Amino acid sequence: MAVQEGSQATVTTRPTAKTQPGPRIGRQTISFASQPRIAAGAAVGGPMEGEGPLGRLLDRVYRDSLLGEKSWELAETRMLCDAVELAAEKAGLAVKDVDMLVAGDLLNEIIASSFAARHLDIPFLGIFGACSALTEALGIAAMAVDGGYARRAIAAVCSHHDTAERQYRFPTELAVQRPPTAQWTVTGAGALVITAGGPHGGDDHAQPRITHATFGRVVDMGIKNPFDLGSAMAPAAADTIHRHLADLQVEPEHYDLILTGDLSSVGMPIAMELLAEEGLDVSGVMDDCGLRVYHQEQNVGAGASGCASSALVFAAQVFHDLQQGRINRLLLVSTGALLSKTSAHQGENIPGIAHAIAMEGPGAGKERGR
Amino acid sequence: MAVQEGSQATVTTRPTAKTQPGPRIGRQTISFASQPRIAAGAAVGGPMEGEGPLGRLLDRVYRDSLLGEKSWELAETRMLCDAVELAAEKAGLAVKDVDMLVAGDLLNEIIASSFAARHLDIPFLGIFGACSALTEALGIAAMAVDGGYARRAIAAVCSHHDTAERQYRFPTELAVQRPPTAQWTVTGAGALVITAGGPHGGDDHAQPRITHATFGRVVDMGIKNPFDLGSAMAPAAADTIHRHLADLQVEPEHYDLILTGDLSSVGMPIAMELLAEEGLDVSGVMDDCGLRVYHQEQNVGAGASGCASSALVFAAQVFHDLQQGRINRLLLVSTGALLSKTSAHQGENIPGIAHAIAMEGPGAGKERGR
Repeated sequence: MAVQEGSQATVTTRPTAKTQPGPRIGRQTISFASQPRIAAGAAVGGPMEGEGPLGRLLDRVYRDSLLGEKSWELAETRMLCDAVELAAEKAGLAVKDVDMLVAGDLLNEIIASSFAARHLDIPFLGIFGACSALTEALGIAAMAVDGGYARRAIAAVCSHHDTAERQYRFPTELAVQRPPTAQWTVTGAGALVITAGGPHGGDDHAQPRITHATFGRVVDMGIKNPFDLGSAMAPAAADTIHRHLADLQVEPEHYDLILTGDLSSVGMPIAMELLAEEGLDVSGVMDDCGLRVYHQEQNVGAGASGCASSALVFAAQVFHDLQQGRINRLLLVSTGALLSKTSAHQGENIPGIAHAIAMEGPGAGKERGR
Repeated sequence: MAVQEGSQATVTTRPTAKTQPGPRIGRQTISFASQPRIAAGAAVGGPMEGEGPLGRLLDRVYRDSLLGEKSWELAETRMLCDAVELAAEKAGLAVKDVDMLVAGDLLNEIIASSFAARHLDIPFLGIFGACSALTEALGIAAMAVDGGYARRAIAAVCSHHDTAERQYRFPTELAVQRPPTAQWTVTGAGALVITAGGPHGGDDHAQPRITHATFGRVVDMGIKNPFDLGSAMAPAAADTIHRHLADLQVEPEHYDLILTGDLSSVGMPIAMELLAEEGLDVSGVMDDCGLRVYHQEQNVGAGASGCASSALVFAAQVFHDLQQGRINRLLLVSTGALLSKTSAHQGENIPGIAHAIAMEGPGAGKERGR
């Protein structure tokens, strides 16, 4: 099975899936023919998130980060349940009418998602992509709905500052000083209801639609510092954005906004520089969710991180920007740093991964005659 | 959005994804119109697995459980890489010709899969479903290939006795005595190459095909003992098997074999009893992968467990039974126990999950005139 170097890597002599042009574009990107709709989104957050710029946009702000539960892990589980139930309600659905929950979080064995799924009691696909979980879940949910395998799916993620610090770095109670490259794990959860697109999209016809997904590869640039995850994730973000744009044969300005998950003030300039080296100037369209969750005076180091970083910014803010035409085309690129305490102790690098989901608001195509 | 109790829970007034009968059957089951093929499978294992009944069927047996690496975690990563590369090679593909790797393992942050994906360098969807990972991965891969989102996908999982013992129970070096309900985590990895079905299935036309998937719900029966995971997983296995058979409106004998992942000698009788309570007699067709990996004299307690339990039994043995017509219809039901050290220490129950994948050999349909 010889494949010529330099050619499209996937061109082989084996028959392809379809004789008609299928949903695949270029080397790594999927096109969704039916354009599944995001019928509704919900975002919930802790006290610090409530005090940040997203505060008034969140569906629920908890008074403390324990939510009256016995442990932070149970609090994180509760947040995920709340986000899923609120999102379903906003979409006019009972949770039991949802065919599939695709969810993940940062905890060992994704126990927040697993225990939330126990409560929610619908078919559950657990995923782990570190902080890239939102766009991984969205991509799987979009495949499921576009293919008709689910009529409605919910993509949901959560993270919690105190569970993450204990698991990945030091328990919060130790009050270990954090270097300025460190980010602040968002305490919160977000959920998005994906419903059928196409001519049968019904009530959800005027909602933002998912047009493409580019699932990322694991990229390792040799970073080892668990207090500098922005640098670890930046190469993966740049790789996925570059491949997505190449597959679609569009310039960065095709999008009104290219929004990464949690590169923050350290990682975002690195990603932009890596893209510039590929001849892609994203300076006019790129931003990072990690810079939108907290005010500078909230003293969070380089910015926000965690699965909930992109989930809160997208579900509470950018989703509405798409709905209301403030932006028409979005590339959402949640970014994950792949480490565990064990891998860090064993001296492993921290590779990154990023998955991109392209979306359009109901007004897209009208503004440029497309 | 009122849904009548007792009716099909998913019948609502909202428009469905398609006006034509879609890929959904009943409440929880997906039917794959193109019937994606399993073009090839590969299974690798450690020394104990080599001495067991599967020994001669494995593609590679390692001389020790470190594989010459510096840590068990690196050894586990190597096994997964080997299984994926061997499976691709058997399917006549280079790994780079595969559009998507769907993989998971038991480790915190699934680092074995993530680091294997770094080496394999193709788009990666990381999943966590504990020991249910194989059929979760197969289900996602089958959706991706059936929908045309990937021309070829690889579903792969691994587990390692020593990494799992350290993480979930006690480090192997402590030599803690294990109760008889305890199972032995399989050291090994398995990978399956999924390619297009339908009229364009080409060379893979005569290979086993994936016909249905039933993604499971999280089921909790109050088990708290991390040395008795068979009991924790049995209710989930019974729930998924029951729902699958109800959705397809078939009796257990529709299948030549209903094969659970790692219920072992404690869990399998519980699952059979729970199914009998629902009026389903599976005694003639049910078996468990956990009882097929080791000889009784290998002293493994209640049997095998781990992601690699169902992966080794399926890829090394049952896949060939399907290919060669020794069985024609299989329901593979990998089973997972959802716990972490944190959740166990916090007194949480251990809920279970099970996903079912239905497959047919090339001879199915001929023997009964279907």
